[in-house]
Amino acid sequence: MGLDVDPDRLPRGVERTLDGLAAFNRGIIAATADLACAFKVNLAFYEALGVDGWRLLRLTREALPRDLIAIADGKRGDVGHSSAFYARALFDELGFDAVTANPYLGFDALEPFLSRPERGVFVLCKTSNPGSAELQDLPCQVGGETVPLYQVVARRAVTWNRRGNCGLVVGATYPRELAAVRALAKDLPLLVPGVGAQGGDLEASVRAGVDDRGELLVVNASRQVLYASADEDWQKAARRTARDLRDALNVARGVGSGR
Amino acid sequence: MGLDVDPDRLPRGVERTLDGLAAFNRGIIAATADLACAFKVNLAFYEALGVDGWRLLRLTREALPRDLIAIADGKRGDVGHSSAFYARALFDELGFDAVTANPYLGFDALEPFLSRPERGVFVLCKTSNPGSAELQDLPCQVGGETVPLYQVVARRAVTWNRRGNCGLVVGATYPRELAAVRALAKDLPLLVPGVGAQGGDLEASVRAGVDDRGELLVVNASRQVLYASADEDWQKAARRTARDLRDALNVARGVGSGR
Repeated sequence: MGLDVDPDRLPRGVERTLDGLAAFNRGIIAATADLACAFKVNLAFYEALGVDGWRLLRLTREALPRDLIAIADGKRGDVGHSSAFYARALFDELGFDAVTANPYLGFDALEPFLSRPERGVFVLCKTSNPGSAELQDLPCQVGGETVPLYQVVARRAVTWNRRGNCGLVVGATYPRELAAVRALAKDLPLLVPGVGAQGGDLEASVRAGVDDRGELLVVNASRQVLYASADEDWQKAARRTARDLRDALNVARGVGSGR
Repeated sequence: MGLDVDPDRLPRGVERTLDGLAAFNRGIIAATADLACAFKVNLAFYEALGVDGWRLLRLTREALPRDLIAIADGKRGDVGHSSAFYARALFDELGFDAVTANPYLGFDALEPFLSRPERGVFVLCKTSNPGSAELQDLPCQVGGETVPLYQVVARRAVTWNRRGNCGLVVGATYPRELAAVRALAKDLPLLVPGVGAQGGDLEASVRAGVDDRGELLVVNASRQVLYASADEDWQKAARRTARDLRDALNVARGVGSGR
């Protein structure tokens, strides 16, 4: 469940204040927590609110159930010395369980996140946006073979997974690429955004992305649940949409795993 | 001048509080502003301080001279819809003139930054960290040629520069690659971190990175200036180190440009 809170899209009756936004997030959490395996906050939406956004991030983290995974989706990536400060910010200051990170700088830039065995790191592999092919599909020469860059990242992630805490991000808008990544990274959890508002096909993504047991796939939904209703029934509408998604996901998992 | 403030390295007499950190940044700004063309804040260091860090970012931005370029170094990159919120955070909420951004997601992810003709975007190309070769030096096939990924990014950046506001980040630790990038992107400003603490060679970087007129190069120094003294003479020491760097940079520019 993605908590990408946008003050311009709040339903009727929710105030465009820090308190209103925090109450909205708490309402969504209460309405969907038993249907979700994880909550993901996209830091961009919070940073756009300035100091209040950082406060909202903290309030939201505090409201998340401790038995679900709390993912800070900031797609960070910097040289090791700086990445260590990002890890401190997201893991220690805010207390998130997992982050998303960008692989462009290589392993040493990811290591400050990966070095925390009790935390998870989802590395961008094939992103959901229309232009992701521009670099990610470039044919690269690696050890006598030619493979697209995103597959190089998937292979490397398997070697980066020394502590069993590395995953990958693959957009639901690219089910064929998702299947290729799963084939290369059989034991890695895959975080899959892009269903709903971005047009990804849920069933195709689930079939392509689950592991041999129909597991290790974290499918994210944000806008379609958060803004399921613009009216005062937003909590009920969010719950209904989330439940429908959960059910559709489980049907697809059953098919995908042959059960 | 990079304002990468670390509470664990503050000189004697500076309090480890929001007020103390803000005063330290103001002191560094006052001591070095006439020697610098730009100030760069690395967001990682601020985020590690939580809500206070975001306050400090605002106070620091407000303290920066308006005639110098204020760079928010966050290496952001997300799908377009999310990048638009990062652009709002850094350009509108905080009022920075320029950002650093990650190219892994492709042009459509950078466009929310680049679409602001009055703001600058430095795209990561060849980063200063030891492991940057892992992906950035991968041989890629593009239009019948094989070139390393960072050179693909440099070529693309030239086409992304529709509004004349795109630059590139190349680490001072790789002067040979810096020369290759300059040859591909003759008119783009290059942001060069990695001198000083990271071991980059200032003179080699400047010679390799300046344009035909000895310009369009923004060399960043952080730790060696900020923490030039651990004692109460930190402002004087910072000024002395910054001046020495400025002078060395100008000598190298003179050599580089044949003047």
